Amino acid sequence: MSRCLIKQVEVQSFIERCMTAVGTKPHHAHSLALVLVEGDLRGHYSHGLNRMDMYVKDIQTGICETSGEPVVEKESAATALVDGKNLLGPVVGNFCMNLAIKKAKEVGTGWVVAHGSNHFGIAGYYAMQALKENMIGISLTNSSPLVVPTRGKDCTLGTNPLSVAAPAQDGDSFVLDMATSAVALGKVELSERRGDPIPEGWGCDAQGQLTTDPKRVLSGGGLMPIGGGEATGGYKGYGLGMLVEVLSGILAGAQYSKHIRMWKLTDRVANLGQCFVAVNPENFAPGFSERMSDLLSIQRGLDPADPDAPVMAAGDPESMNIKKCEELGGIPYHISVVNYMNECAKTIGVSPLLPCDKLISN
Amino acid sequence: MSRCLIKQVEVQSFIERCMTAVGTKPHHAHSLALVLVEGDLRGHYSHGLNRMDMYVKDIQTGICETSGEPVVEKESAATALVDGKNLLGPVVGNFCMNLAIKKAKEVGTGWVVAHGSNHFGIAGYYAMQALKENMIGISLTNSSPLVVPTRGKDCTLGTNPLSVAAPAQDGDSFVLDMATSAVALGKVELSERRGDPIPEGWGCDAQGQLTTDPKRVLSGGGLMPIGGGEATGGYKGYGLGMLVEVLSGILAGAQYSKHIRMWKLTDRVANLGQCFVAVNPENFAPGFSERMSDLLSIQRGLDPADPDAPVMAAGDPESMNIKKCEELGGIPYHISVVNYMNECAKTIGVSPLLPCDKLISN
Repeated sequence: MSRCLIKQVEVQSFIERCMTAVGTKPHHAHSLALVLVEGDLRGHYSHGLNRMDMYVKDIQTGICETSGEPVVEKESAATALVDGKNLLGPVVGNFCMNLAIKKAKEVGTGWVVAHGSNHFGIAGYYAMQALKENMIGISLTNSSPLVVPTRGKDCTLGTNPLSVAAPAQDGDSFVLDMATSAVALGKVELSERRGDPIPEGWGCDAQGQLTTDPKRVLSGGGLMPIGGGEATGGYKGYGLGMLVEVLSGILAGAQYSKHIRMWKLTDRVANLGQCFVAVNPENFAPGFSERMSDLLSIQRGLDPADPDAPVMAAGDPESMNIKKCEELGGIPYHISVVNYMNECAKTIGVSPLLPCDKLISN
Repeated sequence: MSRCLIKQVEVQSFIERCMTAVGTKPHHAHSLALVLVEGDLRGHYSHGLNRMDMYVKDIQTGICETSGEPVVEKESAATALVDGKNLLGPVVGNFCMNLAIKKAKEVGTGWVVAHGSNHFGIAGYYAMQALKENMIGISLTNSSPLVVPTRGKDCTLGTNPLSVAAPAQDGDSFVLDMATSAVALGKVELSERRGDPIPEGWGCDAQGQLTTDPKRVLSGGGLMPIGGGEATGGYKGYGLGMLVEVLSGILAGAQYSKHIRMWKLTDRVANLGQCFVAVNPENFAPGFSERMSDLLSIQRGLDPADPDAPVMAAGDPESMNIKKCEELGGIPYHISVVNYMNECAKTIGVSPLLPCDKLISN
């Protein structure tokens, strides 16, 4: 399974080239590319270059807007309601998170929600913007229905991700970035392609029964919330998925729950709801980052149950992936992804990713 | 297993009598009693009358303060840092939540954290205070280490509960109130007393291995985070437990993680950290409560996998319990709990709970 190593700047430039070729404003394309590249650097390939064709299609079909900028509809010292104007998710996300940070500088916290938004890539990207200002960042979004509520058999909630980032000392941080479903849909799809069973608790069949057969999950079934079935506490994950929906779609007046268009269907605008919060530790007890570092050290320093699997903190696997990319001098992609993206570029008349002459075996 | 029915006002009065008898200020005793009674009404008996002796002991031993009131140490239009002055948890919690609501009325959101606090009963009580003002309420607290981080074998996090309440129409609401551990310690203790095994994913042994033997969990092991082991997504629950710690103990400058005193040990003050947030939907899109009602209806109206187990929303089981108490005309307690509390009252010279002449069999 050989991979192809591509420099970060080239991936950034490639995405910008493709997006502008279909009519995206350069600075919007730049925003999107930054989020997707960060997704890949962090090892979340399902939210990186791999998904660029979806965004290209969103612009090509006109289902996302290319003109205008997000607009503040209602505002107070600490809050804002934003109309995303159906622009690309990262354009809306950056606008809102910057506004939340600005408010947090002034009054200690900023709480900004947007309707009229679209897929914004990894939620962690926005939460992490707050780290640059030594603040806590929170971001969350609703999404197309893929998750079955506890005791139900129909999908009425998205994987509704939630991210919280908090700064520690010397550039260290805590970055929680997780879907409120037990797993991402992509993991179930991968198991199906490989012919592997899935662990109990990941998904259910069309009758709402837990199943280890990925085919059943993908044909009329759905993902389970964090915790799996009711006996193992899945109602908590279901509650968390609802929490995200309440603070995003419901608070923002966007689409929500089963009213959101089906996953991968772009028959109508997404009108997603998103929530961005910044909290300034300066407004609370002194020494925040020192305590954060201690908290992280406590966990990382634990004697592990398995000597080969050290205890980590949220964000550590991603930091390790970034370090790996730095050491390699680029981001490793499957050849098939690179080829697919180059085909995609060809059809819109864009120069391909740099010739893939660096094959690596891991 | 007969139970004894006691009127809500009598339980309220009994707790107040006991707490003031040992030196609690009447309005502090009143606050505590309200939280404990609400815990029982909602069916969370582990956080109600059943725990009164712990609070009595906290006052008797002088490990909690009886004089003074919480103090605002630092404040902005939208935030406050509060010193709970080592008063009873509900005294600190009410002070902070009221302040958060006041700020949310003025600038749309209020974010208040406290150090120097103590056990505050059910987290949901404070989040629900916001419902009275048609606002969203959030409350969370850190707690004594009982949970083992993913891949570890030592307890470095509490069950760190998290509550979010949001108002719907006609008094209806969404009330998520959950520990970030797979289950409460009490459920494992109960299984041990009954000699029953526990489901895989609830706890681990002293070597950090998942176990279905409650004895092993209680002797040197610990609770698992939501999601159970690593393969089933327990790292998400671990991340959520850390999230609560970051926003409570770390942000407030209270004790945190393994630095918090052991559960049930009162060798030193608790100095817990807590966080209270109010968000005013008026500052965002109009029609919040209508959308909330629709969101709740979508879930409750789902065709259930098992016709005898309807799909519910967070807070529905608790609402059903309150309704049951109303129909019964009181709160049903196990005779053993009533007898134990009456013994407790006797030793501090307080009149017992009203003679238990109403025995019910369910």
